[in-house]
Amino acid sequence: MSEKRTELSELGEFGLIDRLTESFSPKQASTVLGVGDDAAVIDQGDEYGLISTDMLVEGVHFDLSYVPLQHLGYKSIAVNVSDIAAMNGIPQQVVVSLAMSNRFSVEAIEAIYSGIKAAAEDFNIDLVGGDTTASQSGLVISVSIFGKTSKELVTYRKGAGNSDILCATGDLGGAFIGLQVLEREKQTFLANPNMQPQLDKYQYVVQRQLKPRARMDAIHELREIGVVPTSMIDISDGLASETLHLSKHSGVGFTLYEDQLPIDNQTFETAVEFNLDPMTSALNGGEDYELLFTIKQEDHAKLEKHADIHFIGHAQDLSKGNFITTKKGNQVALSAQGWNHLSEK
Amino acid sequence: MSEKRTELSELGEFGLIDRLTESFSPKQASTVLGVGDDAAVIDQGDEYGLISTDMLVEGVHFDLSYVPLQHLGYKSIAVNVSDIAAMNGIPQQVVVSLAMSNRFSVEAIEAIYSGIKAAAEDFNIDLVGGDTTASQSGLVISVSIFGKTSKELVTYRKGAGNSDILCATGDLGGAFIGLQVLEREKQTFLANPNMQPQLDKYQYVVQRQLKPRARMDAIHELREIGVVPTSMIDISDGLASETLHLSKHSGVGFTLYEDQLPIDNQTFETAVEFNLDPMTSALNGGEDYELLFTIKQEDHAKLEKHADIHFIGHAQDLSKGNFITTKKGNQVALSAQGWNHLSEK
Repeated sequence: MSEKRTELSELGEFGLIDRLTESFSPKQASTVLGVGDDAAVIDQGDEYGLISTDMLVEGVHFDLSYVPLQHLGYKSIAVNVSDIAAMNGIPQQVVVSLAMSNRFSVEAIEAIYSGIKAAAEDFNIDLVGGDTTASQSGLVISVSIFGKTSKELVTYRKGAGNSDILCATGDLGGAFIGLQVLEREKQTFLANPNMQPQLDKYQYVVQRQLKPRARMDAIHELREIGVVPTSMIDISDGLASETLHLSKHSGVGFTLYEDQLPIDNQTFETAVEFNLDPMTSALNGGEDYELLFTIKQEDHAKLEKHADIHFIGHAQDLSKGNFITTKKGNQVALSAQGWNHLSEK
Repeated sequence: MSEKRTELSELGEFGLIDRLTESFSPKQASTVLGVGDDAAVIDQGDEYGLISTDMLVEGVHFDLSYVPLQHLGYKSIAVNVSDIAAMNGIPQQVVVSLAMSNRFSVEAIEAIYSGIKAAAEDFNIDLVGGDTTASQSGLVISVSIFGKTSKELVTYRKGAGNSDILCATGDLGGAFIGLQVLEREKQTFLANPNMQPQLDKYQYVVQRQLKPRARMDAIHELREIGVVPTSMIDISDGLASETLHLSKHSGVGFTLYEDQLPIDNQTFETAVEFNLDPMTSALNGGEDYELLFTIKQEDHAKLEKHADIHFIGHAQDLSKGNFITTKKGNQVALSAQGWNHLSEK
């Protein structure tokens, strides 16, 4: 009885998905792209359909001791919309499945749905189906989303050329710093349940964690300006990890510039308060749900005056690798596992 | 602090879904039908797209002490394919999300995926995405499926006319009886772990429970014969419940005939062995994943010689209600909550 047992931790999420899906090859003529990007791409004749799915698990992705149910419902939709945005697509419909124990009341579930409804209105999508089921333990929310894009506009992780400019929307690191604030408040509350939470001065970073935007506004603006990114991904796991994804899929390297990273003042100050490095928070924090994309140099002028799109680096020959140039002028290799400012010499 | 708390059990699954979704109304022009049938219907220009989703939760939908992981993977796809079949559609793509604790090895997850792959091959569909995540407790599998159908062939729960013939594919009650066999074996094993399971004589009903077919074969045959059902649903919750769904959506009543119900010999004999009523098992057992549909009387001749499609009743004016005529000639009202043969006078 010596059956091989490989622990999940040995492979990690990406390794596991690669191993599980390597034996599947698309057979349907309509399947343009299966596993391996922010969404699958389906040929629907005149247009491409886009499909993506995300599952949120209590105790893993959220802690109900500080995440309001309404925000949870909103976020479950927003993270899926972000995947459609990352393909340069427009979301259309979602289906939502919930597993929950009977410790949840109908009113609690309605609070989740009120957040789902708010997101459906913000992103102009329809809830068209779902499943509700009992759970013997925690709350699980699984959302699948369907969008579309034209065959000319679809944008993959592949496609960056080695003189392209790397851009990011919004600001980075805030969601991670917001999580630190919420975790500290939870510990304070556990120690003294009569303490009122002190979140006023952290409002922006807490909202970045609890109620992420999905950047459909940027997608619509790029269409209006007439810029089609050469590659794109959403920033869910942190800037470093996503940059390495674009590198791997496009076959180019990237140089980022620390002094170009968009970091909000509140993120910066709160990071310092928590003895965290703001740059590391931006590189590795995750959950910002901003967009990371490359454009051709000739499109630079079209985006130069955009207040919320930032030129943070450039592509280069793959042989040069992936680096960030720090404010001190050092080049430090990017790593998806996290990079520590303190290691800079 | 007297916030209203309504227990989930007060509403039941269908009541809950109705309550949660009543405030959502489709806004996208492409959404032909949202919540309320076996799948959502999306206008894709020349064709209709179909979307459905189902979530399977350990301890609620399956018991890993007797469900092989490979069968579980297969079933998670088949139950979704069945929803596309019920719209008279052809499945195309699936996405699969798994939440699992680290008590599962990589090899265990691979066993689930080998079942998913077998189903993908049987039903000619592509796995195009998914999400794998940690879980603090049990295994959760969420599958969303995408299919298509022509605008002429799409079949809803609504549409039955009051002289239509009610048909069912395959045989009924087997999955429920198979579950009783598996539960008994589990108890025997718990009492004496050295006992080998005695499943040989129950092979058919056990397979009905563990590895349901989705009746795509019947869908293809109906297309070849040139029969478009006037209404259709898949039999996941039991014949009685599904008949009442067709009744509600179509605005007609139904009479079923006990002597026409397709019940396999092994199902019948095992039911008797377990002191269960075979007819009640067929009416209320659930999980057979056969198709229940209505046809116009003029199509009767086209299906008359089909070995696996059974005429089990007929539609009638809604005011006449929904009944089953027993072998003794009594008329007993159908109830979704279950109907007990023993109450017959």
